[in-house]
Amino acid sequence: MIRFECDYQEGAHPLILKRLMDTNWEQTSGYGEDVFCENARNIIRKICENHLLDIHFLVGGTQTNTTVIASILKPYQGVIAADCGHINVHETGAIESTGHKVIALDSINGKISAEQVETYYNKHWNDANHEHIVQPGMVYISQPTELGTLYSKSELMTLYSVCQRLNLPLYIDGARLGYALMSPENTISINDLAKLCDVFYIGGTKIGALFGEAIVIVNENLKKDFRYMIKQRGALLAKGRILGLQFETLLKDNLYFQIAKHAIDMAMLIQKAFIEKHIKLHVLSPTNQQFPILTRQQKDTLAQKYAFELWENINDDTFIVRFCTSWATKEEHVKALIDDIKKL
Amino acid sequence: MIRFECDYQEGAHPLILKRLMDTNWEQTSGYGEDVFCENARNIIRKICENHLLDIHFLVGGTQTNTTVIASILKPYQGVIAADCGHINVHETGAIESTGHKVIALDSINGKISAEQVETYYNKHWNDANHEHIVQPGMVYISQPTELGTLYSKSELMTLYSVCQRLNLPLYIDGARLGYALMSPENTISINDLAKLCDVFYIGGTKIGALFGEAIVIVNENLKKDFRYMIKQRGALLAKGRILGLQFETLLKDNLYFQIAKHAIDMAMLIQKAFIEKHIKLHVLSPTNQQFPILTRQQKDTLAQKYAFELWENINDDTFIVRFCTSWATKEEHVKALIDDIKKL
Amino acid sequence: MIRFECDYQEGAHPLILKRLMDTNWEQTSGYGEDVFCENARNIIRKICENHLLDIHFLVGGTQTNTTVIASILKPYQGVIAADCGHINVHETGAIESTGHKVIALDSINGKISAEQVETYYNKHWNDANHEHIVQPGMVYISQPTELGTLYSKSELMTLYSVCQRLNLPLYIDGARLGYALMSPENTISINDLAKLCDVFYIGGTKIGALFGEAIVIVNENLKKDFRYMIKQRGALLAKGRILGLQFETLLKDNLYFQIAKHAIDMAMLIQKAFIEKHIKLHVLSPTNQQFPILTRQQKDTLAQKYAFELWENINDDTFIVRFCTSWATKEEHVKALIDDIKKL
Amino acid sequence: MIRFECDYQEGAHPLILKRLMDTNWEQTSGYGEDVFCENARNIIRKICENHLLDIHFLVGGTQTNTTVIASILKPYQGVIAADCGHINVHETGAIESTGHKVIALDSINGKISAEQVETYYNKHWNDANHEHIVQPGMVYISQPTELGTLYSKSELMTLYSVCQRLNLPLYIDGARLGYALMSPENTISINDLAKLCDVFYIGGTKIGALFGEAIVIVNENLKKDFRYMIKQRGALLAKGRILGLQFETLLKDNLYFQIAKHAIDMAMLIQKAFIEKHIKLHVLSPTNQQFPILTRQQKDTLAQKYAFELWENINDDTFIVRFCTSWATKEEHVKALIDDIKKL
Repeated sequence: MIRFECDYQEGAHPLILKRLMDTNWEQTSGYGEDVFCENARNIIRKICENHLLDIHFLVGGTQTNTTVIASILKPYQGVIAADCGHINVHETGAIESTGHKVIALDSINGKISAEQVETYYNKHWNDANHEHIVQPGMVYISQPTELGTLYSKSELMTLYSVCQRLNLPLYIDGARLGYALMSPENTISINDLAKLCDVFYIGGTKIGALFGEAIVIVNENLKKDFRYMIKQRGALLAKGRILGLQFETLLKDNLYFQIAKHAIDMAMLIQKAFIEKHIKLHVLSPTNQQFPILTRQQKDTLAQKYAFELWENINDDTFIVRFCTSWATKEEHVKALIDDIKKL
Repeated sequence: MIRFECDYQEGAHPLILKRLMDTNWEQTSGYGEDVFCENARNIIRKICENHLLDIHFLVGGTQTNTTVIASILKPYQGVIAADCGHINVHETGAIESTGHKVIALDSINGKISAEQVETYYNKHWNDANHEHIVQPGMVYISQPTELGTLYSKSELMTLYSVCQRLNLPLYIDGARLGYALMSPENTISINDLAKLCDVFYIGGTKIGALFGEAIVIVNENLKKDFRYMIKQRGALLAKGRILGLQFETLLKDNLYFQIAKHAIDMAMLIQKAFIEKHIKLHVLSPTNQQFPILTRQQKDTLAQKYAFELWENINDDTFIVRFCTSWATKEEHVKALIDDIKKL
Repeated sequence: MIRFECDYQEGAHPLILKRLMDTNWEQTSGYGEDVFCENARNIIRKICENHLLDIHFLVGGTQTNTTVIASILKPYQGVIAADCGHINVHETGAIESTGHKVIALDSINGKISAEQVETYYNKHWNDANHEHIVQPGMVYISQPTELGTLYSKSELMTLYSVCQRLNLPLYIDGARLGYALMSPENTISINDLAKLCDVFYIGGTKIGALFGEAIVIVNENLKKDFRYMIKQRGALLAKGRILGLQFETLLKDNLYFQIAKHAIDMAMLIQKAFIEKHIKLHVLSPTNQQFPILTRQQKDTLAQKYAFELWENINDDTFIVRFCTSWATKEEHVKALIDDIKKL
Repeated sequence: MIRFECDYQEGAHPLILKRLMDTNWEQTSGYGEDVFCENARNIIRKICENHLLDIHFLVGGTQTNTTVIASILKPYQGVIAADCGHINVHETGAIESTGHKVIALDSINGKISAEQVETYYNKHWNDANHEHIVQPGMVYISQPTELGTLYSKSELMTLYSVCQRLNLPLYIDGARLGYALMSPENTISINDLAKLCDVFYIGGTKIGALFGEAIVIVNENLKKDFRYMIKQRGALLAKGRILGLQFETLLKDNLYFQIAKHAIDMAMLIQKAFIEKHIKLHVLSPTNQQFPILTRQQKDTLAQKYAFELWENINDDTFIVRFCTSWATKEEHVKALIDDIKKL
């Protein structure tokens, strides 16, 4: 079985494992106060061209989203998100478990717009009963989105400008950020990002690390006491150095970007194969997730040899499925898949 | 200004005030462990023809909904409700503040169906990633609904049968229960209700009481330690007797039902007036809330003399508004309103 | 049975009931946005000599404490309180249910000192692992305390000065505030109070009202969006006018203070009787709660005719009990009790 | 600087790193549903001689404690723990953040007794106001305790027997379980443990793993839907295989026990050195943490060469400090330390 099920099916980039071995016996302080973390922080500050950034390393995405969002909102506030946003559908109510409603807006291609946010905000504050309604307190988006699509720089600039005007901190979930940055369609660089939101995170789990996400806090007001939040959420790794070491390895010589590019290249080959076979795509994703719409027979045929995810049953004979590539995807596997797509 | 804005604009039925005066100097234990509460509980048990019911008196609706729902759900569970359900839109995220997601289903005329619940349940459990999604843990409906409509006995029987089969406790918000019970279209008696759900409440605030809601717990498994929940939610009234006394007064000689009927009679007169004037109703409500669709001019004209609620802007010239009657609505006010509707 | 069990055993002061009757048919807006509430707010502002105070009326004490404290703390902060503080022992973990630890300091006569708060604060921030420990975020005291004792003006000034220096908002639970204010030992006036803390509440439930507590927010930073908090906590009374009307009645002609004084007078008579009988008092309370230490025989003898609360078993033959007077205590009952104390 | 500060200062046992490299390119499902986790589960079931155990692998201790405790308690219940218990003092209120009070009992040498639990339980239920007090819902202990001491088998049997009788699930925090099991004073084997509590965890972070704790659920009633809890708490590792692989490596050939024994041997040498130098120990710990009481001069002298933790200032010249050994402690470092102790 060749797996295109998700982007976290293998271990880590070999350089990370090597570095783990090389540094194994060094003694360091715990909880992220070590030299590996400090190095990694400095690299991120340099890449983002902002030496004032606060940077924290957490283990996983749900943990990261919950910690960030719960640290920003007041008890009676909720977070605006796309209806298909990860926090709204695939985190078992982690946000609600901290007391906050996810305010879901209809999404188009996985995205919400500045206009939608402003309309919702105005509707809230113009309602005579607004005190009876959860107050919008911040905005959450993903880059790339759950459907692999991208916000353009102009879309993000407009959204952030609205957020700033309405005093709604903007948080960007970058679980797959590397795949966004290396997409041929991408128009937002990582240092743009550090100017166009209040907090974002650089995802490691899905791009070369054993695990790990790097939270980057841009907004000065959101920095205070954040480590207390991390500890309370059970997210302060004892051997924090393991997180620092991974981000140091990934980011210091552009490894993160190179391996992300590989995933995009592989995904584009797969996309092309489906298009040439006249198989429709649910959305034209320019990143590492591809969503072909298959007949039952096509699905069953491919499933004999490949693992992929069933995304949605459209009807008894029509299925949206998801193929993911990653930093670890082997070219020979992609070629085999393409051959088999041709034969469908 | 004559007010049809809501159904809690006056004080209480005079018999309640009289009884407050008559009993004022009696000394009782606090926290609902007094003879007034005990009498009221026994009357409710008798009306519902079930002497095993657990009954608790709380002050208000949001408090009641939050206490009941938080007592039933496990941390990772959510409550299924209509998208327009009070807990989803008008309680400032009180349910989420206890850690639980409101799982909103599309509603038709304010209602959700047994089929919708079953479909959602099956979709959840058939999803390979169901552990990443909030688990449906119970069902919340209102009788009457937020739009004044009613579940029929057959609809409720089907819904409850599905809930029992799927092990989803069914909770009925009865903030306006009296108005449901006395509607000409109603097919569910109060003792039906005590057989067709796991918990419900009999609303007092909107039907003759100064304040107060009577929670009726039918399901044996939901009874244990409920008073701990009430206390923790800040909902255990020190002078609980005031709640007991009000429900005793309202329920012992059918006062609750008589005054609810008055509200329905008044509402039907208003409804008739709108229909005769060929003014459309957003929904044909058989209870005390009426939702005419007015032009800007009609709205502005009526607003000079009457208070009513703006429900929704359809467009710049079209508005859904809400007129409420209640136990306290004066017939002369209704007559004046009808005359003015005719003149529109 | 004559009851000295607690201070909420009767209904309300007759002037309140009269006013309820007189205003019963007036139509008002809900949720505290009515003329009764506005009048009551203005009276409180005048009494406190500060027209900028934000004032909100809630139903009960646990609700009030939870709403205030949850509105002030960040998720990783706790509230410093006396170990015997109401929030620490008698609210079924309501504070914890909002996510916050109660940081309990040892109390002497129910009180904690400025020095204790400062010591705890310094210990926290000097701990190398302080990020692993709940951060002290505010201070809660009661006036009078759970043991009926009083903070002196000089104690409160010192405490508040420390709180301000350490940036710890000070909140005073005034469930029995009237009894503090009218104690012969009291040195803190109500307008002192409005200068010596950030938030306090004026208790109505135990002093003449059917129910009700008036939150007074002094600190400008704590005022924003407080009504959202009230609604989310299920504490926004639909017919808010009933709360406004009660505080208006109690406060407009000093009724609150007169009836509180009566309770103190009655309590002092009882205290004197115990002292003259050489029965020790657990604490020399200058307010409406008295804590004699009785033998089993004394306790059983009095229990035949009077209800009072068992406070603590010291040993098999020695019991601390509590006698409460209130605004409603009848002089004849006190005289009977005194006679029976003499006969012990 | 030679570090005896804590037991998580190095990376992982080399066999774990080797195994990470050997398996790096294997493709597996995520979230703990892989063959490594399944193997590790089976090894634990075998060691514990119970094939019905539910086993889950989490990343860290605070996360583990919070997930387990929040899954067991009802909203109005608290967890009984020693006052010095980790959940009470060093997890930034993580338990309270899930809504639950930690009910702290006075500890002796870090331990609480069956008798204390029963006394507290009886006091609660005999209190006339018990509904106003957080209900004890479970018991938490650590083996070894925060002070490195051990419960004996007879103590644990008595405690668990009381817990079972009172229907209080018993949860054992085994962050340093290996060090307990290999202590010369230990009388509780790991399969005893699986009979003498409802849930426990086998700590990996402090004993050879990069990170990781293995939750072992014994009690059938506590097994249901636990993975939902893990996901909601942000504790479901995407590449769960890394956790499985580590426990597989540690447990399959007794590696865990051998390396734990090394830490104990090293700790006993240090203990002996202090005793021979007539330096008092705060507590006579039979495990890997040692708590000598040093003068300022002794402390400062050792601090020039060694990192250790300041545990408590007794007074200006007397300090309790903590030296930790671990699986990774080098014998040469211990010898150097011993020499320097002799020279004090």
